[in-house]
Amino acid sequence: MPSLSQRAAAMPASPIRKLVPYAEAAAKRGVKIFHLNIGQPDVRTPDEFWNAVRRPDLKVLEYSHSAGPAALREGIAAAYRAMGLDVADDQVIVTTAGSEALSFAIGCVCDDGDEVIVPEPMYANYIGFAAALGVKVVPITTRIEDNFALPPASEFAKRITPRTKAIVVCNPNNPTGTVYSEDQLEALRDLALAHDIFIIADEVYREFNYLGGRPKSVLELEGLDKHAVMVDSVSKRYSLCGARVGFIVSRNPDLMSAAMRFAQARLSPPTLECIGVIGALQTPASYFDEVRAEYRARRDVVVSRVRAIPGAVCPDIDGAFYATVRLPIDDSDTFCQWLLESFDHNGKTVMFAPATGFYATPGLGKDEVRIAYVLNTSALNEAMDCLEAALAAYPGRRELTTA
Amino acid sequence: MPSLSQRAAAMPASPIRKLVPYAEAAAKRGVKIFHLNIGQPDVRTPDEFWNAVRRPDLKVLEYSHSAGPAALREGIAAAYRAMGLDVADDQVIVTTAGSEALSFAIGCVCDDGDEVIVPEPMYANYIGFAAALGVKVVPITTRIEDNFALPPASEFAKRITPRTKAIVVCNPNNPTGTVYSEDQLEALRDLALAHDIFIIADEVYREFNYLGGRPKSVLELEGLDKHAVMVDSVSKRYSLCGARVGFIVSRNPDLMSAAMRFAQARLSPPTLECIGVIGALQTPASYFDEVRAEYRARRDVVVSRVRAIPGAVCPDIDGAFYATVRLPIDDSDTFCQWLLESFDHNGKTVMFAPATGFYATPGLGKDEVRIAYVLNTSALNEAMDCLEAALAAYPGRRELTTA
Repeated sequence: MPSLSQRAAAMPASPIRKLVPYAEAAAKRGVKIFHLNIGQPDVRTPDEFWNAVRRPDLKVLEYSHSAGPAALREGIAAAYRAMGLDVADDQVIVTTAGSEALSFAIGCVCDDGDEVIVPEPMYANYIGFAAALGVKVVPITTRIEDNFALPPASEFAKRITPRTKAIVVCNPNNPTGTVYSEDQLEALRDLALAHDIFIIADEVYREFNYLGGRPKSVLELEGLDKHAVMVDSVSKRYSLCGARVGFIVSRNPDLMSAAMRFAQARLSPPTLECIGVIGALQTPASYFDEVRAEYRARRDVVVSRVRAIPGAVCPDIDGAFYATVRLPIDDSDTFCQWLLESFDHNGKTVMFAPATGFYATPGLGKDEVRIAYVLNTSALNEAMDCLEAALAAYPGRRELTTA
Repeated sequence: MPSLSQRAAAMPASPIRKLVPYAEAAAKRGVKIFHLNIGQPDVRTPDEFWNAVRRPDLKVLEYSHSAGPAALREGIAAAYRAMGLDVADDQVIVTTAGSEALSFAIGCVCDDGDEVIVPEPMYANYIGFAAALGVKVVPITTRIEDNFALPPASEFAKRITPRTKAIVVCNPNNPTGTVYSEDQLEALRDLALAHDIFIIADEVYREFNYLGGRPKSVLELEGLDKHAVMVDSVSKRYSLCGARVGFIVSRNPDLMSAAMRFAQARLSPPTLECIGVIGALQTPASYFDEVRAEYRARRDVVVSRVRAIPGAVCPDIDGAFYATVRLPIDDSDTFCQWLLESFDHNGKTVMFAPATGFYATPGLGKDEVRIAYVLNTSALNEAMDCLEAALAAYPGRRELTTA
């Protein structure tokens, strides 16, 4: 039997993969499941996208330029400039979603055995992208008690080694909903400059900021032109998760030239969906205002309902559409499985992602789950009813010593 | 200035990238260019695709399953079975084009520093995918005099080291148009089994076989279930290069489980284009018959016209839509640039890919170009007129000593 690579062995399974059979079995039993386990919004994709992809003059679906169709590069660069970010057309490459932008960014700066420092809990797929490239994720733990704020730069500095090539931040954060402050980002900037390493900032939740205005972008940090890489995506902004269209943005020309060679190897992002996104760029601002208002209301439901549960802890949530909350449970993997396998509340239950999958440090996240508040407030309230009832019934309930 | 990775430095530029500015300048001067430099067919994408993506009931473009929509996995597996390949639904994962399938395959079997043996001239992006993963491409040179047939297994055996994890073959071949014989493939099979290494077979040009019938698939080689990985794509078959939908297929469950973890990290292939491909699977056989007849006629034009040129060598071409031909020239990079920069024939010229980019061995391919015969026979004949006139005028013309 031929052996597979160590790389393959290091690829983590999806945090919810082991729950899927239990969810399928529950659905088969007729139990209704509120899916709060994945960041798939229920929001309608803008008409501007659908109108563009339905154009009857499309006849041959050709490769697009490896950097994406010119109209899309120019359109998104103009959109960045309109929001106050100084980005030239050739400082953007269209990628196959934020996923590919992250892979390109890590690939451009890291060799096998190199390290990236990432605050945890973290978007679980950072671990996967790094593993695929032989890169080590060095976690720095953020705490629910601090609303998952970035630790001081001195804590990051302790983790920097000669193999450290980048700090990766997600802002607003998946899975915590934290929006990082300007001061925190500037402290990271100083550290990156002092150690001559990159900051790769995943800013795909930019539009989901409940503090008002726009979160500070890595591209606005002074003096960081050569060290800053921004990763972006249309998935959440336009409810286009399936489109697989994203962007890598940097003012470092060497990095963009390297990213372009990665882009050429895979030829092209998906052309039809790029055509749709060119259309979606014309989506009126009112679309986002409505979407943001809707998510703010959903956020409010999650915060108030979780905080009302004895023994549960919900931090402040300022952005994205996730909350990582602490529950009075023994083990989040067991609890999330039990919710699907052994529990229902009037024929309904709820599916969360156990937070263990979002920590690179083994053993962390056992009393936390990630809630993706991607359903309307009525469904969310029902889901929270289920959670409340479940915690009252769960055999592995554990009173928090600090509660 | 922060340093980039060695991986990035090893990523090759596209073989035609340096020609693009010359092509743009020629177009600006009003010169008409016959683009025989890239495998972008001019064939119409089937209506079945367009009808599927224009369905008015599509409202939210959601993530698909990481392995692709079930209907697509099941549909393509059924299509494989219909053509006589024994493939179960769970032996297929939908990928973001053949590119991603190749990256997954190499990533599943190779670690940094491992080696894959690849016949050259080769599809240039194999070098890119390998470089991105820190994997070394070990070339084995095929010769135009042999119609680029596979060398005997003994030649492969000489290149096998403890770091060799796979042999990668493209059949029918890009860039040579060679279709490998059953005997040649069985010799490779024996070698793979003897050394317990994988055969990764890129079979995206399956439908373009002018010998009649279907080329032998790696999935049909007896005893190779655990060692065979097939890479497939809809790009060429349905003139869907821009769709970025492909497949990785294997009966090795460990490999498929590892590929699934790679697939989960990037979440989903492009959903809308998968929906279109589910439609395209219903394309009637007559579509392929027409397309194949058209390409066969184009192939005939290229072969007869190139063979009529004094000092030029055109091998037998049995599949795909490429020919790698020898020309009486000093340097194919210089010649291809000169065609765009300094030549026209009645206001027209032709763009080829210099074959140097398809060899991993430095110095090879200097008197060869790749012709992608993706234009209709009338345009192709005009392009061949240009080539003929160009070779009469080219200052770097070199008489072949063996001609």
